Amino acid sequence: MVLDPDREMDLLDAACPSRDVFVDLADKWALLMLMSLRERGTQRYSELQRSVGGISRKMLSQTLRTLERDGILSRTVNPDATPPLVLYSLTPLGSEIAEQTRVLCAWTHNRAATVHAARQAYDAQHAVTTGA
Amino acid sequence: MVLDPDREMDLLDAACPSRDVFVDLADKWALLMLMSLRERGTQRYSELQRSVGGISRKMLSQTLRTLERDGILSRTVNPDATPPLVLYSLTPLGSEIAEQTRVLCAWTHNRAATVHAARQAYDAQHAVTTGA
Repeated sequence: MVLDPDREMDLLDAACPSRDVFVDLADKWALLMLMSLRERGTQRYSELQRSVGGISRKMLSQTLRTLERDGILSRTVNPDATPPLVLYSLTPLGSEIAEQTRVLCAWTHNRAATVHAARQAYDAQHAVTTGA
Repeated sequence: MVLDPDREMDLLDAACPSRDVFVDLADKWALLMLMSLRERGTQRYSELQRSVGGISRKMLSQTLRTLERDGILSRTVNPDATPPLVLYSLTPLGSEIAEQTRVLCAWTHNRAATVHAARQAYDAQHAVTTGA
């Protein structure tokens, strides 16, 4: 993975052709879905809904469609099953990005306590400032 | 950065204490703001608004407040300036996470053409399927 700071900065430009790809990925539901498919492998719709805690059917359907269209996950239908069996899994491209996002998840866990402490300090200070 | 798959998977649980930290970060505006502050350093509100293309004042204010509360960026006021000078910069914690998110940005650039090709194929197939 080559890091090119100049091209990386292009993402700040709303007209950058890579921006809409970034927008599809820089999303909590997309990232949690990648995480689930990476760790638990191929899943049905109902399994994904149980796996990604808190996701609505609307957001699940929307995120699945976006990521399928982006070539990040594949949707296969087995019409011989009753009812037809629809399965979702990561494509090789999807596996690649799912691997890249591990660091964000790991950082979140490792630093969550620090962030929670910062919030407490902020809220305490804010309460004093506003006289609440 | 230690990767612990078991703890990482906890993020899929909506009740996981790290989930709300993840939600603050797994957001396009938060990530673009981290990118801008990492590359361009300390900035005023108006500079950030120009820097992060497409962000509304509402989303800018909301994201700044969220990340300040999380201890990821700091807001300093110089009251001697006229008008008072308000500056935003990354904290050491913020610099750490900004560095972690580089891979997501780099991947986006390196794979954007592949994603765009996948979208074209999906749209062509979908048009055929629906008879449009």
